[in-house]
Amino acid sequence: MHMIPVGTDIMASNEKTALENREFFDRYGIYVVNLMSAPGAGKTSVLEQTIKSLKSEYDLGVIEGDLVTTIDADRIAATGVPAYQITTGLVCHLDARMVHNAFHGFDVKGFDVLFIENVGNLVCPAEFNLGEDLKIMVFSTTEGAEKPKKYPLMFHEADAVILNKVDLAPYTGISIEELAQNVREVNPLAPIFAVSCRTGEGIEAWITWLREQIRSRNFDKAA
Amino acid sequence: MHMIPVGTDIMASNEKTALENREFFDRYGIYVVNLMSAPGAGKTSVLEQTIKSLKSEYDLGVIEGDLVTTIDADRIAATGVPAYQITTGLVCHLDARMVHNAFHGFDVKGFDVLFIENVGNLVCPAEFNLGEDLKIMVFSTTEGAEKPKKYPLMFHEADAVILNKVDLAPYTGISIEELAQNVREVNPLAPIFAVSCRTGEGIEAWITWLREQIRSRNFDKAA
Repeated sequence: MHMIPVGTDIMASNEKTALENREFFDRYGIYVVNLMSAPGAGKTSVLEQTIKSLKSEYDLGVIEGDLVTTIDADRIAATGVPAYQITTGLVCHLDARMVHNAFHGFDVKGFDVLFIENVGNLVCPAEFNLGEDLKIMVFSTTEGAEKPKKYPLMFHEADAVILNKVDLAPYTGISIEELAQNVREVNPLAPIFAVSCRTGEGIEAWITWLREQIRSRNFDKAA
Repeated sequence: MHMIPVGTDIMASNEKTALENREFFDRYGIYVVNLMSAPGAGKTSVLEQTIKSLKSEYDLGVIEGDLVTTIDADRIAATGVPAYQITTGLVCHLDARMVHNAFHGFDVKGFDVLFIENVGNLVCPAEFNLGEDLKIMVFSTTEGAEKPKKYPLMFHEADAVILNKVDLAPYTGISIEELAQNVREVNPLAPIFAVSCRTGEGIEAWITWLREQIRSRNFDKAA
């Protein structure tokens, strides 16, 4: 990506559009979950598991962000849930404007829950609000226990952190406890879910928590 | 990172500084290897293995690029090789200017081979030449076989692709053959090395190739 730091103007513009997205989501009662991670941590796999658990309860939709290809949108479409692909070209994150523009081609008004899968990148997506209710970070335990120290922002911004691929821990020698402790140091409050999308381990705890977030918000709205 | 696409001016400026770096490296006979990957793919582990194999033959030095912390530079320093940490703050890649500025604090003139470990990011580092001889990409086989299709630029730009963590393949179900085929589609020429930094598998083939690259260049210079 050909870029220079430009500071607050870009972020102010993004915040403004994110707020407009937020108002739009509120108007139509859409709960929005932004999934962020490094490439290959398992965002799409977490989504597949989440859709399987929630699709009988809620009308779901998915916006996929990728540089190129519709591989992820195709995977989601195979679950029977509507999916829309944003291809960003060389841009290494989604911003609020891209999400806003997607609404022109993807009618999200009927959804109870809209998932937005960000571009795989452990740095920049964390800086761009999209107007979402939740920022969820997926981290692959194969990437190393020290990563919360080295890439703190996304861990810090997350409303929940999913530690994926825990089934591989016996073969990597990486300590899930040490990793969770390092997450805690940059984010003391977010719940941490240790899961394996391959075996299904830990998915139920994540789904139970997510369901509770969706319900709480709907309750707040009704009140 | 607060950024906007600004096109050719930034890249032209980077190319100019990269060329100056290149001239500096040539003047002092320093062979420069830029290591790029997503976070946690194993760049530092590859470096540790590479240093172990080459440090009796060459004077080696390492520049480490990270957002924050000196964790990687500390790991390299433990191998007995001089290491210098560039912390980029929120910038998700190294550029030629950062490398140039590092020379003011890190005397690289005596090195035969200088390794530069880029910031962990599968997108932006591939766009910024640093004046290096080789761009080496490290990819973790745990990240999925389809990634060369989804993040083609870095695979395309690499002079060699190291597929790391192959010892985990039996547990992930990811096909190394399919992954290598997908690398081939975006980069038909670069050699591909399937390795495990944990077990040492495949490291010798990588080292043999790298040694040959260093020798070939030294031979070209002498001729």
